[in-house]
Amino acid sequence: MTDKTVADNRLLHGGDYNPDQWLDYPEILKDDLRLMKQAKTNTFTLGVFAWSALEPTEGEFQFGWLDERIDAIHKMGGRVILATPSGARPAWMSKKYPEVLRTSEKRTKMLQGGRHNHCFSSPIYREKVAIINRKLAERYGNHPALLMWHISNEFSGDCHCDFCQANFRSWLKDKYETLEKLNHAWWGPFWSHTITEWSEIESPSSIGESMVHGLNLDWKRFVTDQTIDFYKHEIVPLREISPSIPITTNFMADTHDLIPFQSLNYSEFAKHVDIVSWDCYPAWHNDWEETKDLAAKVGFINDLYRSLKQQPFLIMESTPSGVNWHDVNKTKRPGMHLLSSMQFIAHGSDSVLYFQWRKSRGSSEKFHGAVVDHDNSETNRVFQEVSAVGGALEKIAEVKGTHKQARVAIVYDWENNWALNDAQGFSDSTKQYPQTLQKHYQSFWKKDISVDIVTLNQELASYDLVIAPMLYMMSDETISKLESYVFNGGTLVSSYISGLVDDTDLAHLSGWPAPLKRIFGMEVKETDTLYPKDRNALIYNGKQYEIKDYCTIFENKEADVLATYMEDFYQGNPAVVKNSYGKGKTYFIGARTEQSFLDDLYEEIQQEVKLHTETNILHEEGVSVQTRESDDYYYFFVMNFTEQKQTIMLKESFYDLLTQETIDEHVELSPYEVMVLRKEK
Amino acid sequence: MTDKTVADNRLLHGGDYNPDQWLDYPEILKDDLRLMKQAKTNTFTLGVFAWSALEPTEGEFQFGWLDERIDAIHKMGGRVILATPSGARPAWMSKKYPEVLRTSEKRTKMLQGGRHNHCFSSPIYREKVAIINRKLAERYGNHPALLMWHISNEFSGDCHCDFCQANFRSWLKDKYETLEKLNHAWWGPFWSHTITEWSEIESPSSIGESMVHGLNLDWKRFVTDQTIDFYKHEIVPLREISPSIPITTNFMADTHDLIPFQSLNYSEFAKHVDIVSWDCYPAWHNDWEETKDLAAKVGFINDLYRSLKQQPFLIMESTPSGVNWHDVNKTKRPGMHLLSSMQFIAHGSDSVLYFQWRKSRGSSEKFHGAVVDHDNSETNRVFQEVSAVGGALEKIAEVKGTHKQARVAIVYDWENNWALNDAQGFSDSTKQYPQTLQKHYQSFWKKDISVDIVTLNQELASYDLVIAPMLYMMSDETISKLESYVFNGGTLVSSYISGLVDDTDLAHLSGWPAPLKRIFGMEVKETDTLYPKDRNALIYNGKQYEIKDYCTIFENKEADVLATYMEDFYQGNPAVVKNSYGKGKTYFIGARTEQSFLDDLYEEIQQEVKLHTETNILHEEGVSVQTRESDDYYYFFVMNFTEQKQTIMLKESFYDLLTQETIDEHVELSPYEVMVLRKEK
Amino acid sequence: MTDKTVADNRLLHGGDYNPDQWLDYPEILKDDLRLMKQAKTNTFTLGVFAWSALEPTEGEFQFGWLDERIDAIHKMGGRVILATPSGARPAWMSKKYPEVLRTSEKRTKMLQGGRHNHCFSSPIYREKVAIINRKLAERYGNHPALLMWHISNEFSGDCHCDFCQANFRSWLKDKYETLEKLNHAWWGPFWSHTITEWSEIESPSSIGESMVHGLNLDWKRFVTDQTIDFYKHEIVPLREISPSIPITTNFMADTHDLIPFQSLNYSEFAKHVDIVSWDCYPAWHNDWEETKDLAAKVGFINDLYRSLKQQPFLIMESTPSGVNWHDVNKTKRPGMHLLSSMQFIAHGSDSVLYFQWRKSRGSSEKFHGAVVDHDNSETNRVFQEVSAVGGALEKIAEVKGTHKQARVAIVYDWENNWALNDAQGFSDSTKQYPQTLQKHYQSFWKKDISVDIVTLNQELASYDLVIAPMLYMMSDETISKLESYVFNGGTLVSSYISGLVDDTDLAHLSGWPAPLKRIFGMEVKETDTLYPKDRNALIYNGKQYEIKDYCTIFENKEADVLATYMEDFYQGNPAVVKNSYGKGKTYFIGARTEQSFLDDLYEEIQQEVKLHTETNILHEEGVSVQTRESDDYYYFFVMNFTEQKQTIMLKESFYDLLTQETIDEHVELSPYEVMVLRKEK
Repeated sequence: MTDKTVADNRLLHGGDYNPDQWLDYPEILKDDLRLMKQAKTNTFTLGVFAWSALEPTEGEFQFGWLDERIDAIHKMGGRVILATPSGARPAWMSKKYPEVLRTSEKRTKMLQGGRHNHCFSSPIYREKVAIINRKLAERYGNHPALLMWHISNEFSGDCHCDFCQANFRSWLKDKYETLEKLNHAWWGPFWSHTITEWSEIESPSSIGESMVHGLNLDWKRFVTDQTIDFYKHEIVPLREISPSIPITTNFMADTHDLIPFQSLNYSEFAKHVDIVSWDCYPAWHNDWEETKDLAAKVGFINDLYRSLKQQPFLIMESTPSGVNWHDVNKTKRPGMHLLSSMQFIAHGSDSVLYFQWRKSRGSSEKFHGAVVDHDNSETNRVFQEVSAVGGALEKIAEVKGTHKQARVAIVYDWENNWALNDAQGFSDSTKQYPQTLQKHYQSFWKKDISVDIVTLNQELASYDLVIAPMLYMMSDETISKLESYVFNGGTLVSSYISGLVDDTDLAHLSGWPAPLKRIFGMEVKETDTLYPKDRNALIYNGKQYEIKDYCTIFENKEADVLATYMEDFYQGNPAVVKNSYGKGKTYFIGARTEQSFLDDLYEEIQQEVKLHTETNILHEEGVSVQTRESDDYYYFFVMNFTEQKQTIMLKESFYDLLTQETIDEHVELSPYEVMVLRKEK
Repeated sequence: MTDKTVADNRLLHGGDYNPDQWLDYPEILKDDLRLMKQAKTNTFTLGVFAWSALEPTEGEFQFGWLDERIDAIHKMGGRVILATPSGARPAWMSKKYPEVLRTSEKRTKMLQGGRHNHCFSSPIYREKVAIINRKLAERYGNHPALLMWHISNEFSGDCHCDFCQANFRSWLKDKYETLEKLNHAWWGPFWSHTITEWSEIESPSSIGESMVHGLNLDWKRFVTDQTIDFYKHEIVPLREISPSIPITTNFMADTHDLIPFQSLNYSEFAKHVDIVSWDCYPAWHNDWEETKDLAAKVGFINDLYRSLKQQPFLIMESTPSGVNWHDVNKTKRPGMHLLSSMQFIAHGSDSVLYFQWRKSRGSSEKFHGAVVDHDNSETNRVFQEVSAVGGALEKIAEVKGTHKQARVAIVYDWENNWALNDAQGFSDSTKQYPQTLQKHYQSFWKKDISVDIVTLNQELASYDLVIAPMLYMMSDETISKLESYVFNGGTLVSSYISGLVDDTDLAHLSGWPAPLKRIFGMEVKETDTLYPKDRNALIYNGKQYEIKDYCTIFENKEADVLATYMEDFYQGNPAVVKNSYGKGKTYFIGARTEQSFLDDLYEEIQQEVKLHTETNILHEEGVSVQTRESDDYYYFFVMNFTEQKQTIMLKESFYDLLTQETIDEHVELSPYEVMVLRKEK
Repeated sequence: MTDKTVADNRLLHGGDYNPDQWLDYPEILKDDLRLMKQAKTNTFTLGVFAWSALEPTEGEFQFGWLDERIDAIHKMGGRVILATPSGARPAWMSKKYPEVLRTSEKRTKMLQGGRHNHCFSSPIYREKVAIINRKLAERYGNHPALLMWHISNEFSGDCHCDFCQANFRSWLKDKYETLEKLNHAWWGPFWSHTITEWSEIESPSSIGESMVHGLNLDWKRFVTDQTIDFYKHEIVPLREISPSIPITTNFMADTHDLIPFQSLNYSEFAKHVDIVSWDCYPAWHNDWEETKDLAAKVGFINDLYRSLKQQPFLIMESTPSGVNWHDVNKTKRPGMHLLSSMQFIAHGSDSVLYFQWRKSRGSSEKFHGAVVDHDNSETNRVFQEVSAVGGALEKIAEVKGTHKQARVAIVYDWENNWALNDAQGFSDSTKQYPQTLQKHYQSFWKKDISVDIVTLNQELASYDLVIAPMLYMMSDETISKLESYVFNGGTLVSSYISGLVDDTDLAHLSGWPAPLKRIFGMEVKETDTLYPKDRNALIYNGKQYEIKDYCTIFENKEADVLATYMEDFYQGNPAVVKNSYGKGKTYFIGARTEQSFLDDLYEEIQQEVKLHTETNILHEEGVSVQTRESDDYYYFFVMNFTEQKQTIMLKESFYDLLTQETIDEHVELSPYEVMVLRKEK
């Protein structure tokens, strides 16, 4: 990892550009340049999936078309993010070297097709990647338009071929040294699963072993490490030839809830990229949630990816309209494109980039929203809205490189999510670890309080408040880290299903760990898992709140009881407690409550920790104010995530970057309207 | 194709007869003949799936049992439809020659079992089929009882073995000549999918390529062509030895909605059969729709299969009771069997044939409704109802060979359905192209107006009104054909999601095609796909109609606005427009509306085009009157598809073929009652 | 089979003990013994899945740890159930001899992993099992602590490897002798499925044959026989060396409804075990049924497994808390553990054993409820409740070995369930044969009348009432047996979908069998299968009851009509009839009704047959009184399966074994409370 940053003082606007699909259409290629200017774009990602255009025959390379495009973009003042093409390979390679294709978990060799389906271990694939990457670096590594390297595309998936099995066994040998240690970690004797030779180990499979949690967890760790290893192999020639060019790869989110991508541990991967970039596709205007609730989820995931490196990140892909892979691919309503693009910036992005510049003519992505539609027109609504975003980005260019400061951290741990989802017990359909964190986050988002979403690798001491709910898996190091944090004055919040297993997914011996008993002032005894229609309630400050899914039954030792259960055999027992430990404080939330309880509890905690937003802007729910700051200024992004007009009250005067006017007092925001207000520090 | 017709002047009544299952039961075989007469049946299909009875050991044939049955049927005045046995093969063949078995899309070689599972390319299977078919033709081709050849059974499915891969590549070479053209059609550079050697091409697979729309589309076309090729191979000896005997194979419908069978393009297959025949199994009395709504679907599919050759067709299979493969296998209520059988005739069938004559004793079809039940009795309800149908068919025998005349055509395009279902964008669960056509059809069915369902190969000029909704895929030829049709005075209706791609599934360059803009007087800009709970509305003639699923946003140029949107950001924009072009007119329906809008719009159009039914019969909704006509007579099938009595008003007098009385004025129809009324022209 | 019984006069309390998972934790092993005493446990099952601990390397055995544990248990007065370890095998064995692993029905060789996945035919696996079992018998067969052998664990599943195919063909040759007979039974000519060489036969497969009912049925029979054959192979050395030690294997139930396990025919398997034992895991406190309804299902399955040998059985596994494999793993509410444990005893169990003694630290079962939790504490709620069960079992020890006497039998036939589920026709989602029997059972459970659930192998003459609903498959022997039973004075109840096929799943020739027409006094004509939303009703004794799913239309000959249909085309037709035949009576229930009809009809039948409970205890619904009896005493288990207090009325005085007081008149039961009352005969 380096601390390279993007060598351009503009907020990046543009996106994936695939001229290799249009080489037979010279008039289209010409139009592209004209339209790029009209759309106020400045940065284009080339070469993603271009391998068959770059090396149509083994060992014969064609760079002419790429030379021409990069030069043309450079000439018009644009910059290029150049991708390595490994996300898909030419058919000739799969035909000649089937080993480059993946083997599924059912041990079936896949056929050529799709994308993201190459074996990360294959020596031949690594060799071919090394050759093409070196060629690209030699040819373009010092091109003045080159802004950044983009490695492959959306790394994901795993391979179970013999190469990967061998690598997995090596990885396990490095980790455990002896089978005795491995068997202990995997709880080998259970179901006679003791391993007696390294060669007996096989990756998890639905036609073999799928229930050994230690194996499952180690396989997921190995897949992350092996993917990073492949990525590191890819960047060797790039680093060697163009050492000053930053390197990234595009991350993703999972499901309509936009939870953190689950197949790879990005907190490990982030250490190896210079800049975090990612692809964000919220399902705006859907029919199951309000716009503001989705907006909070978008805030959460962007704050997580920003916090991975605690520096501005890039939106590498987004859409100006609908996508093509949601269940329902609805078009963005007028105004939403500007609002949602500004939201990226508000949470720390220095770019608004699209997939893709121009809609394909054929194949499966031809209806994915793009800047230029099949009509090749600059007059249609989508193009106009993109152009408006371009204009806005130019007006707020000074926010580029500015930071967000947070005194609150929510802990998100990729491995905890893996282990908890694998756990048998509880209820699979209601675990929802990432969604639970989103709910805690929402209590702060509503109040415009900046939050970092941090991993367990990161330092906690700088935060006034650390929130770590559902931390099922806690190593001794984690427990010790949390204890120190509290002892030295921090405030810690945790919840049901926390502290049950160590980092090999073995239950802590002697039950709930002693340090947790100390800091929370109580002992967890049982976790009651409720059926979907079951309801309980707790009473807190005289008010009643609904409970579902989970109730922790604990024995209070010395904590203050904040709330008690209203029903069932633990009626009257503590449901939420608060404790003092060392110079710090802890809160333990025993049950899954409705959102309003979290809002109200965090209101109390915020007062106690003296947390508040820097903004002096009052508004109703659904408006979000996010802050970026430079040495001299605060920048407040005021965003109306409702379908109604909203009157906000400015308690001081601000400079409006978009209208370039100074404003104060009452201001009315149209539906989906956004303002960017500057205030001197 | 020839224009052979069925050489028997009776309406055919009978069905699949499988005496090979009963060769150990001589008393059953004897009873069959007696019961056939009692059931008033006259035609039997023999030999379907009889291969193991005909050739129990390789090269040793046993025709004695079949000789005996055919002679016996002939003797009692019956006719025989003789099937080739290729729909399933003896176990010895699969054992000795595994190549005759299919390979799945996952590249797994199947085992012997089931039916319809042979490779269409296997040289050995073709050889074996040629031998047995020649034997059958030699032995029975000139038998006086032989009415028709029935090739195999319900052709369907595909095979991915090496033979089929080789044939697919040859087919592609014939079509594209160069890989350059193929890569352009398949949009090769997308995801680096460019093909550089023909041998790299593989059929679509869930373990390989599944997202290249051009490949998917060509594979489906190939499968249709390869199936037809196999069929053509089958008929060689039959044509040679019995040139005057017509040949058919039985077509099918798909899903409970009875949409056109989707795996094969019947509009191609129909060119190669002498007579269209098909197997119709509506789920009468179900719990999700009214009887009249299902009846309209039955009307639609029968009108489609009739229109394939614009001549009477045959119902090759139907059931007198319940089937065995619906989710719920409910028995037909009294009267429904006669009503539904007459409906086949009403829409152009010259037969009512059943699967099957006698219920099997064993295996999976033993509870499929049949004429003779396990009780071997002629006294039970089902047998009695079959016998009543036989009696009715004798009374109306003069309708045999008469035609239907339609001035309205609805376009159904098999390839459009394939391409649209494959399209990513929109929403998979709401595309429903065939179901949408059924809704348009229903507006005419309710008014007793005859409709042809035509394919794009067919001539349009003879129709006063052509309806082509959701025609996503339009080749330049199609666009030109539609333009000419309108220019020369036709009236054309189209809708949302039309005209987006050409016949290789590539988006039309420059957006919506210029000829479409001309004829509709507007330009389509965006298609908004709604979430399931989303609703909009349009206002037309002062009345409001609900919209869901799809809204087209278009820019009106010169069309008359018939309806406008009531909600969302395109509120007030045109939703439905009408235009004049040349001597013709067009209507464009931008959104998916409730049925009543289609009914009301088509009411306006019917008046404009001066469309009306030939019948002079007034009735409430749920009664359907369908017309067949000879040179001298109209035949009106008056059918009560409700569970209530219905009073109809005859505005002139008719001759009732079933009661053999002349009737006029008010007549009362019992629930499910049917009348067949004749009127001189 | 022998009539060995458990040589210990205590009710067994304890469960699966897996010290092999804890050999690295000597302090845990020491604590176990102390805690066992505190929990009032006396019996432990060792060795399940311990193969890798017993034979870590091929041919090298380690028994030291097991010696030590068995001796320690013996020393504290406990007994041991010793398992053979074949339920899972060491990884070295799968690696060296892949033939020991199963082949799936798709013909995929499985990988090492999971459990219960060994081929029952593999010669090598049989050899390895023989060696280890002999070693165990030699070492422990005469140990004074040894109470019983436990063979493998939860036998289930099938294998489709070449060994199994060969064994299946041999089994078929033994059964049918000629292919002619086999083809007749399988209705060979259907779809050309005639077998011409034995080698053509393959087990059913989703990639081959799956629709030949005779094949499917024979495969299931073969799998049962082959599993039993494997079991018999396992016990050879045990019988030889320790002939007096009883042998069992643990049976299971299926689905949340606790229906009889469907993969194996336990009525065959039960002949080969000395004592029936099984694993019972009801989902108490769920959100889709009332506690009393689930309790009746628990009663049904326990009465079935008791009736298999008509002697006390053992609960081999249960949980003191929640399990880990339900969709929702809720903890047992206070009191439920004692209540549900006593219910096992009430229905004939002589044990309450748990899976497992101590929660694992790792892998997939670590959160399955156990006696000792991860906290290793005897103070927690679950441990305390287990200890209370131990105390109660000691107080009621005298019920050990006592019997239940029933005058009512409900017929449950495993093969009928297989055949009916395979039948095409009716509606797959509403067949629910076992659930239908549960509903008939409930009518007696509510009235505290003891019921045996018997198979067709068992003698019926001793019962006053035999209930055989939905007996789709009836061999001629079965029909004859039922006819004799009625003729000689028995009362028989049957229902819709009965008597349709013989024991090869061939429809009875000539329709409904003549003996059935005779005994029921009518003839079944049609079965109408209703759609899910369809409803009909019947009227019985002036009261109306709802009908769904199935209606039989029959022609009454001489039966008395008890109820008639209220709707549809069979309105007014008989729905339920009663007939006299010989000295006996029959009832035929034509339709699926709501529960209250069954309750009311059986009230009438109970009066007619003079059936009543031995108890003199009055209570509301939700309280169950089950009776065991010795030569001298009745033991009444009075159980409150409601969440409310219940007042019961004792019409005489009883001795309360738990409180050791004599009680009479009104007694109040707390929610979930249980009493065990003794009365002299």
